[in-house]
This record gives sequence, structure tokens and C-alpha cells, in this order.
Amino acid sequence: MSIQKPKGTQDILPGAVEKWQFLENTARELCTRYRYREIRTPVFENTELFSRGVGETTDIVEKEMYTFFDKGDRSMSLRPEGTAGIVRAYVENKIYGEPDVSKLFYTGPMFRYEQPQAGRYRQFHQFGVEALGSEDPSLDAEVIALGYTFYKEIGLKDVTVEINSVGTPEVRANYKQRLQDFLAPFKDELCKDCQSRYERNPLRILDCKVDQKRFDGAPELLDDLDEACRTHFEAVKRHLDAMEIPYRINPRLVRGLDYYTHTAFEYKAAGIGAIDTIGGGGRYNGLVSQIGGQDQPGVGFGLGLERILLVLESQGVELPKPPVLDVHLIGLGEAAENEIVKQLYRLRSEGILAEKDYQSRKMKTQMKAADRAEARFVAILGDDELERGEITLKAMATGEQETVALADFVGVLKARK
Amino acid sequence: MSIQKPKGTQDILPGAVEKWQFLENTARELCTRYRYREIRTPVFENTELFSRGVGETTDIVEKEMYTFFDKGDRSMSLRPEGTAGIVRAYVENKIYGEPDVSKLFYTGPMFRYEQPQAGRYRQFHQFGVEALGSEDPSLDAEVIALGYTFYKEIGLKDVTVEINSVGTPEVRANYKQRLQDFLAPFKDELCKDCQSRYERNPLRILDCKVDQKRFDGAPELLDDLDEACRTHFEAVKRHLDAMEIPYRINPRLVRGLDYYTHTAFEYKAAGIGAIDTIGGGGRYNGLVSQIGGQDQPGVGFGLGLERILLVLESQGVELPKPPVLDVHLIGLGEAAENEIVKQLYRLRSEGILAEKDYQSRKMKTQMKAADRAEARFVAILGDDELERGEITLKAMATGEQETVALADFVGVLKARK
Repeated sequence: MSIQKPKGTQDILPGAVEKWQFLENTARELCTRYRYREIRTPVFENTELFSRGVGETTDIVEKEMYTFFDKGDRSMSLRPEGTAGIVRAYVENKIYGEPDVSKLFYTGPMFRYEQPQAGRYRQFHQFGVEALGSEDPSLDAEVIALGYTFYKEIGLKDVTVEINSVGTPEVRANYKQRLQDFLAPFKDELCKDCQSRYERNPLRILDCKVDQKRFDGAPELLDDLDEACRTHFEAVKRHLDAMEIPYRINPRLVRGLDYYTHTAFEYKAAGIGAIDTIGGGGRYNGLVSQIGGQDQPGVGFGLGLERILLVLESQGVELPKPPVLDVHLIGLGEAAENEIVKQLYRLRSEGILAEKDYQSRKMKTQMKAADRAEARFVAILGDDELERGEITLKAMATGEQETVALADFVGVLKARK
Repeated sequence: MSIQKPKGTQDILPGAVEKWQFLENTARELCTRYRYREIRTPVFENTELFSRGVGETTDIVEKEMYTFFDKGDRSMSLRPEGTAGIVRAYVENKIYGEPDVSKLFYTGPMFRYEQPQAGRYRQFHQFGVEALGSEDPSLDAEVIALGYTFYKEIGLKDVTVEINSVGTPEVRANYKQRLQDFLAPFKDELCKDCQSRYERNPLRILDCKVDQKRFDGAPELLDDLDEACRTHFEAVKRHLDAMEIPYRINPRLVRGLDYYTHTAFEYKAAGIGAIDTIGGGGRYNGLVSQIGGQDQPGVGFGLGLERILLVLESQGVELPKPPVLDVHLIGLGEAAENEIVKQLYRLRSEGILAEKDYQSRKMKTQMKAADRAEARFVAILGDDELERGEITLKAMATGEQETVALADFVGVLKARK
């Protein structure tokens, strides 16, 4: 009996992996321009980090984490998201002591035990950024612009940005009361999820798809913003306007987690049928102190790569192809085969993509393999030619053949690279 | 109280992460030339995969794995090495059915619960290749050459290759008997580790550093090779000679795991004091069927990136620096600041590395920040200049200043990129 991969995980094989490389390379290159530097934190962390950083009563921490005891009997969890670990590293390594704002990015695997479905895996991958150490609204706008530009540069079409201000915890406490007052008369008629949210997290109720029609005339968080929140939000919008980033204000957009302050945003795209959220983020001025550090502001986003690939595919976006083979070498006979191995090594040392056969296949089968690999040239060496110090070079596009001195072989291919 | 990273793990921060990027980029680019394609398998797998693929009685599986039950009560383990998962994916996805040999590479985190020490972490990272589907000795030589070239291209000095043939399981059974006969007379005088290896794995005894002087005249595995093993080993050496890869035959080199056949090899470098193994691999014709698939031959290596970085550092090898900042923008006053945000976005959209301040710092402090970032230019915009549609551009190397029309600003910087 053969062993299978764990349920909800996937193998990323050659042919598919090139898409991942393209997304990651684009993200890295873009972050270089925006001056975000990569950070890598461990794949697992002390469980307490996530109860504190994500929230004890969230679904993620309550139901979805891969938690285990290590051999030293410490409770560890595979990271379910990227922000908590980075904030932990920011505090533990005293990065907040550096003079400049810390602009960081990450890509990597995250883990949640959820029911697998299209675009949702138990090991999934995110590209995210975190900018720590500044409350400047131009930083909120920059983070939003960076995510938007990422989608644009990978070729995704019709991405819309939705933004909102969720204010401060004080503003939200006020609003929460007003909202509960509005909902109270028909509380018992709401869907089950919403009923359970009524006490715990009434702001999320307005997100509900089932009860949407009941919410006409609901109070709006934006009306409750204080002066400072309003000024911040206005500045973010002004900067987005200046950058010509199209956005839509969605006054009902909240991001679930208590630590969000001021800006909250989501990216949406026409996916398979419905409009899907393909990423989101916000400002989290309360999180760093919550995790145990200095009181430092932050803003960031996380984008789900599996979902982005799904939307790219449904939009029919063509991604760049892997580089083709420069030359396939065929040696006929043992001495020629030995020479081929040597030439192959030299070609590769000079930056040329070169290949041979490893299965003692006939010349005809090797020619087919070269064709499949879209080889630009095939080079054929027989014992006779070897004796004369020559090799036959065939251009696959034209079928033209020529004889090249073995001593010049690498040079000739280099010149035609 | 702030939360710390798990013991034996590390945060890879900006300033250090660039070294990792360099190693990985070199590995990827090199693999492209050698026609190895990337594969990514899950970070955790069914525990049974590793008991079968690494070996029930190995230290790794017995003592060092992070094993846990998921919420569906299945035993899972964080991968302790890279080969088993790739072989599992090769079988499960029927990659063996493709006409060509599968040449695969991977980089990524592995996990072993070991006592942390210099260069040894509980989450560590490997670059490895696996070539599946061919017994051709030119493939063994290619894999050895690829690893050797990797070390050379990252700038590591004095790397030596040690090779051996460990034959087939039958050859080793014979040899094991001869070796036990040789060791029997002084078996009780060997070190404790070696005594426990006497029955279980006597071949590893010859590796022992404590008892080395007792092994003069010990029988050698190479003398027991049958005709087919000998022919294979001769061909590997002939190909390495043709490629001018320097190597040393170490007849006592065995790689511990039962599935190795024919070629075994290790890379060593002068590290901190002693000569260290910095990578190794071999041919494993028995492994694919052991994991539950077709009987398919394979050969590969795994290189430990933490250890390589340690040796690079001790050798004082200079790694490439991250790209410097093209331009730092300073806006004086609110209107100028707004314009700066817009220009920044445009510059970055045109591939220019551009930055601003996010902390409302004074001009002098910003100039210092620009200096630290090795900015090539600083651009200063005041409200007066904004009114005239101009910006001041200062070249940091020469101190020269000039006035540029805002409309031309991006173009001017692009021309000087």
C-alpha cells in the first residue's frame, strides 16, 4: 500500500511550480522597489503567541490550529497566519529600536485545519507585508497600493479595493452599543451565526450574506469616528487618490479581529462566478503591545496565493513559461557518451541550459524528447566524429545541420544563446 | 511578559535574509541550467511515510521527529528530511509514468528535535535534488557535479568530494559478515556507540572517531563489490574525471540508511577548525519500492544551508549586497508631502527603488536616514518649488544639486538608473 499526502495538502509539481515562482518573484521584486525587506520566522511558535496575537475566542485559535506538545512538553502550534510571528520577532529582536520604520514582507506556508474546498487547503500560502513603527496615513496608503500593484503586475484583471475606517477600540465600543440597539428588535429572527455574534462581535453581523436585506438604515461606524480617526481616514483617501488607486468605501467592512484600528481594506476580484475576496489587511495599532512589547503601531496585509492562482486561471491569464532547453546532446557509442558528459558539464558551467539522455534510449526517441523540451539545438556525436574532433549541430527550428569543432562547441553555443 | 521563539529555531531578519536569498537564487539558477525542476511537498506528512522511508529504527524516527495527532486523529510528523516526501509525491502523482527521467530539486524547512548547537537548529533548511528513473552512472556523476558546482558558485573554498560505492544489499550482507569477523576479537573494547552498532549497523563503526586506530587492516567494502557494482563505480569515477571534479575515494564512507546502493558521497569543507561535512547523498535504488511504488532507481543529495552559511562566514566569503536605494524623497509641508506620495508611487511603478520618511522627521534626520540606506539621490520638495512645478535633486556621491521639472522627475531618475 502506498502512502498518500495528508488530506487538504497539495504537491506542487513541475509544470505548476513555475506559477508559484512567478508570483513569489513578482512579490520580491515589487517589495524591493517599495523597500520592504524579507523576514522569515519559524513555521511553528509557542501556542500562546496565537491565543494572544490572533485571539483566544477566534475560530482560528479555538478550532483550526495544528497544536501539539513537543518532546519538552511545550505547547506548540503550526502558524495559522503570518502577522503574529513577525510581531513576536519584531519585539524579541528589538527591531523597534532601529531608527527607521520597519517595512517587512514574507511568503510562506500557513496551516489551518478546515474543511478543504476549491482554493482552500490545510497548508496554504500567503504573501504579506507588515510596516511597523509609524502611524503616518501615507503608510496605510502605501501598503494598499503595494497589494494593488502586485495584483496588477501578475496580470489579474478587475481588482477592486474596498476600504473603511474601523476607528479605535473606544469608537467601536460606542458604535457596538448603537448597533446592538438597532438590531435588538429583530435579534431573534437573525440567522444562527448572527445570533451568536450579537454579543461577541456584532460588527461582523453586517457582513452576513443571509440577513443583508434587514440592515437598511443600520447605524454606520464611519458616523461615529472621532476627529483623529476622521483626519487619518481622509489622509489615506487623499493619498490613494493622488496615486490613482481606484477604491470603494465599504462602511460595513470590518476585519473581525479586535486589534484593528483605523484603516481596514480588502481586495476583491471576479473569481469563479462570484466576486471573491483575494486578500486584505489593515492597521493594527494595538497588536504589538498585546503580544507583549512596546506600544508600536503597525499596518499590513496578507494575500492568499492559492486563491489568487485560482482567479488567475479562471480569468485565463497567461503566465510566463519556463526557459526552453538550449541544447540536447546525443552520444552514439561509449567513447562519444563519455565526451558528451564532459561537454555537458562545460556548457552548463557557461550558463547554457543543456541536457542528455539517461536511459540509453535510441536516437529517434531522444530526438522526440528534445522536441518535447523545445530544445533549440540538438548536438550529435558519433565515434567517427569524436576521432575527427567534431560534433554535428542541428538547429531544430530550421533543420539546418553543421559540423563544429569540439574545441569550439561551447563557444559556438554561447554565441547563439 | 513577551513571548519568545521556540527553542532551537531562529528568526531570519533583514540583513541576514539576503544571504539566504543568495543561496536559494544560486541553487535555482544552477538547477535551471542542469534541468532540475522545483517540487514542493507538504511540510508535514503521515508519520508512516518516515518510518518506511527513513527507517523505523533510525535516530531520526525514534527520537527526533515532531509527531502529533491532527484533529482527525491521524498521526502526522513535520518532515525531518526532504527525500521521503518527494518520493511519495513521485509515486502518488505517477510521475514515474512520464517518458523522461524526473530531475527534481527542493529548498525548504525540515524539523528535528535535537540539542541545538552552532549551525544545528530544530527547524533547519536544506537544498536538495532527487533524480528518479535511471540507473545511468552519468546521473550519479551529474548529481555530484551539481552539488560541487553549487559550493563553487556561492564562493565556498576548498570543498572536497569523497565518494564510495556501498554496493547492493546483497554485497553489503556479505561484507557485514566479514567485518563482524574482523571486529569480533576486540568487540568488547570498542566504544559504547560502536558496541551497540556491532549487530545493528556494523558498517558505521568504521566511521567512529574514537576507535579509528583499531581499524588498520579492516576488510574493505570495495573489495566485495560484484562485477555490476564495480562497473557502475568505475563509470562514475570516469565521468567525474572527464568533468575535472576533484574527488577522493573514502572506502569507509557509508551513509547510514539501508536503502543506499552503489554511489555514496559527501562534501567536506574546512569549517570552524575541523573539516566538516556540509552535504551528502547517494544512489537509492531500493527506496521507491520501499515507500510503496514501482521499483524505480534514484540518486540525490541534501545540503544543509545553516551549516553552509556558517562555513561561508568562517571563510570570510563576501556575499553580494542588497541593492541600494535609488532616491529618498523629502516633502516640506503638507502639500509637498502629498505630492511626494504621488511621485513615490510613480517612481516605484517604473522600477526605481524609492523611499520617503514615515515619522515626520526633520530634514537633517531624513538626510541621515538616506545616508544609512546608501541612497544615490535625495529629492527635496518645498511648497515654493511645488508651486513652480519643480523639485531639487541632490546626487549624494558628489553633493551636486540641480532643479528638475516635476513633470520630468520620473524620467530623469529612470535615465540615471
